[in-house]
Amino acid sequence: MNVSQIADLLQSQGYITEPAVSMAVYLSMQLKKPLLIEGPAGVGKTEIAKVMARAMDTDLIRLQCYEGLDASHALYEWNYQRQLLHLKMVEAQGTLSGQTSDLEEEIFGEKFLMKRPLLQAITHHRAPVLLIDEVDRADEEFESFLLEVLSDWQITVPEIGTIQATHIPQVIVTGNRVRELSEALRRRCLYLWIDYPDYEKELAIVRGKVPGVSQKLAEQICRFMQELRQLRLEKTPGIAETLDWATALAALHFDHLPKEIIEQTLGVILKDWKDTRTAQLSLSELYEKMGVVSKLEGV
Amino acid sequence: MNVSQIADLLQSQGYITEPAVSMAVYLSMQLKKPLLIEGPAGVGKTEIAKVMARAMDTDLIRLQCYEGLDASHALYEWNYQRQLLHLKMVEAQGTLSGQTSDLEEEIFGEKFLMKRPLLQAITHHRAPVLLIDEVDRADEEFESFLLEVLSDWQITVPEIGTIQATHIPQVIVTGNRVRELSEALRRRCLYLWIDYPDYEKELAIVRGKVPGVSQKLAEQICRFMQELRQLRLEKTPGIAETLDWATALAALHFDHLPKEIIEQTLGVILKDWKDTRTAQLSLSELYEKMGVVSKLEGV
Amino acid sequence: MNVSQIADLLQSQGYITEPAVSMAVYLSMQLKKPLLIEGPAGVGKTEIAKVMARAMDTDLIRLQCYEGLDASHALYEWNYQRQLLHLKMVEAQGTLSGQTSDLEEEIFGEKFLMKRPLLQAITHHRAPVLLIDEVDRADEEFESFLLEVLSDWQITVPEIGTIQATHIPQVIVTGNRVRELSEALRRRCLYLWIDYPDYEKELAIVRGKVPGVSQKLAEQICRFMQELRQLRLEKTPGIAETLDWATALAALHFDHLPKEIIEQTLGVILKDWKDTRTAQLSLSELYEKMGVVSKLEGV
Amino acid sequence: MNVSQIADLLQSQGYITEPAVSMAVYLSMQLKKPLLIEGPAGVGKTEIAKVMARAMDTDLIRLQCYEGLDASHALYEWNYQRQLLHLKMVEAQGTLSGQTSDLEEEIFGEKFLMKRPLLQAITHHRAPVLLIDEVDRADEEFESFLLEVLSDWQITVPEIGTIQATHIPQVIVTGNRVRELSEALRRRCLYLWIDYPDYEKELAIVRGKVPGVSQKLAEQICRFMQELRQLRLEKTPGIAETLDWATALAALHFDHLPKEIIEQTLGVILKDWKDTRTAQLSLSELYEKMGVVSKLEGV
Amino acid sequence: MNVSQIADLLQSQGYITEPAVSMAVYLSMQLKKPLLIEGPAGVGKTEIAKVMARAMDTDLIRLQCYEGLDASHALYEWNYQRQLLHLKMVEAQGTLSGQTSDLEEEIFGEKFLMKRPLLQAITHHRAPVLLIDEVDRADEEFESFLLEVLSDWQITVPEIGTIQATHIPQVIVTGNRVRELSEALRRRCLYLWIDYPDYEKELAIVRGKVPGVSQKLAEQICRFMQELRQLRLEKTPGIAETLDWATALAALHFDHLPKEIIEQTLGVILKDWKDTRTAQLSLSELYEKMGVVSKLEGV
Repeated sequence: MNVSQIADLLQSQGYITEPAVSMAVYLSMQLKKPLLIEGPAGVGKTEIAKVMARAMDTDLIRLQCYEGLDASHALYEWNYQRQLLHLKMVEAQGTLSGQTSDLEEEIFGEKFLMKRPLLQAITHHRAPVLLIDEVDRADEEFESFLLEVLSDWQITVPEIGTIQATHIPQVIVTGNRVRELSEALRRRCLYLWIDYPDYEKELAIVRGKVPGVSQKLAEQICRFMQELRQLRLEKTPGIAETLDWATALAALHFDHLPKEIIEQTLGVILKDWKDTRTAQLSLSELYEKMGVVSKLEGV
Repeated sequence: MNVSQIADLLQSQGYITEPAVSMAVYLSMQLKKPLLIEGPAGVGKTEIAKVMARAMDTDLIRLQCYEGLDASHALYEWNYQRQLLHLKMVEAQGTLSGQTSDLEEEIFGEKFLMKRPLLQAITHHRAPVLLIDEVDRADEEFESFLLEVLSDWQITVPEIGTIQATHIPQVIVTGNRVRELSEALRRRCLYLWIDYPDYEKELAIVRGKVPGVSQKLAEQICRFMQELRQLRLEKTPGIAETLDWATALAALHFDHLPKEIIEQTLGVILKDWKDTRTAQLSLSELYEKMGVVSKLEGV
Repeated sequence: MNVSQIADLLQSQGYITEPAVSMAVYLSMQLKKPLLIEGPAGVGKTEIAKVMARAMDTDLIRLQCYEGLDASHALYEWNYQRQLLHLKMVEAQGTLSGQTSDLEEEIFGEKFLMKRPLLQAITHHRAPVLLIDEVDRADEEFESFLLEVLSDWQITVPEIGTIQATHIPQVIVTGNRVRELSEALRRRCLYLWIDYPDYEKELAIVRGKVPGVSQKLAEQICRFMQELRQLRLEKTPGIAETLDWATALAALHFDHLPKEIIEQTLGVILKDWKDTRTAQLSLSELYEKMGVVSKLEGV
Repeated sequence: MNVSQIADLLQSQGYITEPAVSMAVYLSMQLKKPLLIEGPAGVGKTEIAKVMARAMDTDLIRLQCYEGLDASHALYEWNYQRQLLHLKMVEAQGTLSGQTSDLEEEIFGEKFLMKRPLLQAITHHRAPVLLIDEVDRADEEFESFLLEVLSDWQITVPEIGTIQATHIPQVIVTGNRVRELSEALRRRCLYLWIDYPDYEKELAIVRGKVPGVSQKLAEQICRFMQELRQLRLEKTPGIAETLDWATALAALHFDHLPKEIIEQTLGVILKDWKDTRTAQLSLSELYEKMGVVSKLEGV
Repeated sequence: MNVSQIADLLQSQGYITEPAVSMAVYLSMQLKKPLLIEGPAGVGKTEIAKVMARAMDTDLIRLQCYEGLDASHALYEWNYQRQLLHLKMVEAQGTLSGQTSDLEEEIFGEKFLMKRPLLQAITHHRAPVLLIDEVDRADEEFESFLLEVLSDWQITVPEIGTIQATHIPQVIVTGNRVRELSEALRRRCLYLWIDYPDYEKELAIVRGKVPGVSQKLAEQICRFMQELRQLRLEKTPGIAETLDWATALAALHFDHLPKEIIEQTLGVILKDWKDTRTAQLSLSELYEKMGVVSKLEGV
């Protein structure tokens, strides 16, 4: 596969891509290196992983990071209760049947292992896409643990032994720049920075993703979003919000953007009350810029 | 159903609503997205969930969050002792088929599964309303777990397998802004901010909710509440308190607000002794503003 | 029953009350809302619950909270060992019907259920008074659990099923302001703040509660207590101590308060050695203020 | 019995007492309230309990508290193994009546009940003295449990039923102020603070307790102890140590206090090496103050 | 026996003693009080117990404490397995008398009792020396349990009854000051602090313990050790190290202390690299002080 094929693949999955993205994905696959994606929230970082999985027709395994995440949560845990019950059960049967089963089922076998994402990814029957989301929310300790796994692709379970990956997963790491990632992790990965889309791209995405939306509405939505992002917001809305909004408005059967409706549907794009305030204060200005007409006038 | 129908529905359930609210509810149902509601305490955030459940004639399942809440509390737990006893019993009775797997199936059956709200919501026979209350009191780990459930609507119970939601629940998430919610959760939801009601709205609510209250009393109560909220209180009273008070006063068969009674019933609206103090100090002033007449005078 | 009747009832139980208290109790009964009582220690908060129980001629069920209290301690526990033994016994005796379910029913019968206060309260044959004492010593998790019980008045015991309260208990919650209670709990309750009694009230209480005490002694005791509370003590003595002291002095057959005896009986009212010191240092001053006469002089 | 009789009783048991102590003991017996005794270590707090038991010619039951002490350790435990074996035995012998309940009764009989101090105290044939030692070393949960026992004097053993105390034990609670005791416990008790004895009292005690000691030696010992307590020691020696020392010196047949011997027997009164150091450094000074003569000179 | 005899006894057993030690031992025997010995590691605390046992021609019973040690480990345990099997056997053999109680008696007989040190000590045929080693490594619960045993010298075995000590053992308790021992335990015991030996004592010990060492070598070693301890070391070497070193040098067949060898064998006495450094820097000075000759010169 070459770059343009990758681009086509992504495109075919409905992902409106840019050369940089497809190149990154291509190289990441080619060089078998994790891809570290950074960018503002809501810009579709995780989307890439999903699309990749779909494109490669494989599974997506996701490891969501959070403060306090530790190795055992990411790898595996034993299902002790089940082990015990199993013991008891075997015992009960043994008692009854009056004989020891020849096959002593290994109590520390796969069956009693609760696999967590990393182990899942390693033991997956075919190379999956492993999405390590918001890695910067975990702490340095976890990060360095991750690093080891990413370099060796093997995991040691004391009770079982070392499990070697059969297929090296395709890894996507995303970060929000909450804290600085370590040099080491950065070095291990290829890097991709995704920014908010520009007007044209956003328009394309909206049109591609939301079938029911009219050209005019789509344009207004995108123009509005572009303006909105200029405001100093706590939580700048991303593409995800644009799509939601477009869907919502389409669901409401609008083919343009009336003032009232914007106000009533702000909750779809702004997720913070301060932002809501800010936006409401600037709405009239935004309208003007956009030439939005009030519904009444428009009717 | 369209927006105005939603508005009617809510109204019919006695919920005095605004366009923004009904729009949010409508979109949330339409887009199948959780609705995140924020606002000061006592403003009726959870009420919306209840009303919705009633309106949609379905069940309300509530997950109250608190610090330290973890997945097992939210999902399910095995009734471990019971399983053990069951085993014992089986053993004691000697009623065993030859197969371990049968016994295993039995022992990991529904009977021994203690469902917690999330699992309940997923396995509910019809789409319930799932209220996740005060989500910001839970910690990040739980939030991140929740996120997964909310996106996939499926839950894996190792001993049973993956349980897919038959009907996607209608989700309402409420928060008090105790801590910042994660970006991801916000993005997953639609957003609604509810503030204290203004005088008219509160009056309407009181009249709607407390049948026994006279117009005059209702007005005095609401005016008093509005004033009270101006004071610097630890715990500003919300609508819930207004309704309680109205009910209490109605129960006492008053049709206006005598001074003495206010003092004696402050405990219904103020839940903190400092506030009680503060209020008592300002009472006469409040009276004046409100033109409350002492009972005696009034008689 | 109306407010004044409540007041009479309390009075009749020897509880010297104030309008605010009886109003709170009345509303709590009327609105079927728990009553949250706060105030300094030893002021008779729990007394209210007791008096109420007596007044309503019902039982008092008390749930004492402490750090680490969890649901199983508050609700019920299975007597696991006993169940096991029972099974063993059954097995030993060979008295088994063919049915597991029968045995199961037996084994999960009342006999093996250890009811804890909350379950007791719910399954009580008539609406009891449920006293949840020092709720602020329990942790948040428990508080949140409590909240659910208090709103639904039903409890699910997996092995038995859901138990619905036949009679909603009358709930009194007390707190010492050790930590902040959650908003939610406060909102659920009516609020009552009880302070140290003033001289008159205390005198009335003493006279009411301790029959053997002379008017003069009672007066001296109460005056002394009032003075004592002005000192900066670690553990300010409450009414309970006043009553104890009165009882003690009555037991010693005094009809006034001699200096020597105060000193020797300080341990009845002061429970901390620093306080004892403080008090002893200020004693002569206190005497003067009170006009206590030395026994000798007095004789 | 009145106060002075109590004093005589204690005296007769060799306990050198003060009015405050006998008053406290008297009131505690009179008011049937536990007596909480605090004071520095080694001051004879537990002695009071012992003396009381002897004085009242009853048994002393002691509950030594420590961190992690829980209810089952303090109340009772079933001797499960023994129960099992009994079952087995019965089974083996085939001596089973047809009734489970009979067997059950047998198996949950006194024989298999291991009584712990609290249950012992309650079921004692005559009101014992219950000494709850160093209660502040136990944790809050236990304290709260204790509180209940102390107020109701009844204990519920699920398998047997509720056991009501036949005679209310006389309770002595001691504390070292390791942590703050709860308000509630303090309120439940009468309070007594015992300090180190002064010279006269100590002398009296020594002479009373150690018959073999000469007047001169006793005086020197007590004077030495008084001085020693002025030093900044880690573990200030109490009366117990004084008595030990007196006994030791008497055993060595000394009738005065030679320098050399003090040094060699310091280990009897000082239990910490730092203290030993401190004391040795100050010895000569102490000698001087005391006018101790070296053995040689003295001979 | 009097003090000097004790001293002789200890001496005769190869324990080089000081007046304080023999006095402590004497008093401990005299007053029948346990002797608590503290001191730096490697100073020969447990040695005293051994010597005492030899001196009194009785057995030494040792209870080594460790974290998690509990009463059953220290007292006794029933050999459940054997009991069961015995039952089985009896059953199989059909040799059952009609009486359960007989069997019970049999089954709870000495034969099935596994005695642990404390019980051993109590039931010993003549007063043994009971060494409770490193008591501060056990946890508080055990310490509190120990306290009881040490005061009553009786142990209750539910199945057998109360066992009273026939001869009070001579108790030696040692501690390393790992944690603070409880007041109570300290008070129960006599106290002895043993410090590093001075030159003569050390020399005597070395000569006594290491047969192969020449007088000259022993002297040099001890002088060197004394000097070494003057340095500011992280880990001051104790007697144990001296003995090790002497043994090592004897093993190398040296009869004096050549420079080179000191340097090469420093690792035997110094266990910290900083110390090694320090020592090496000061070696020449030490040599000078000691008059160590270089091997070459010395030959």
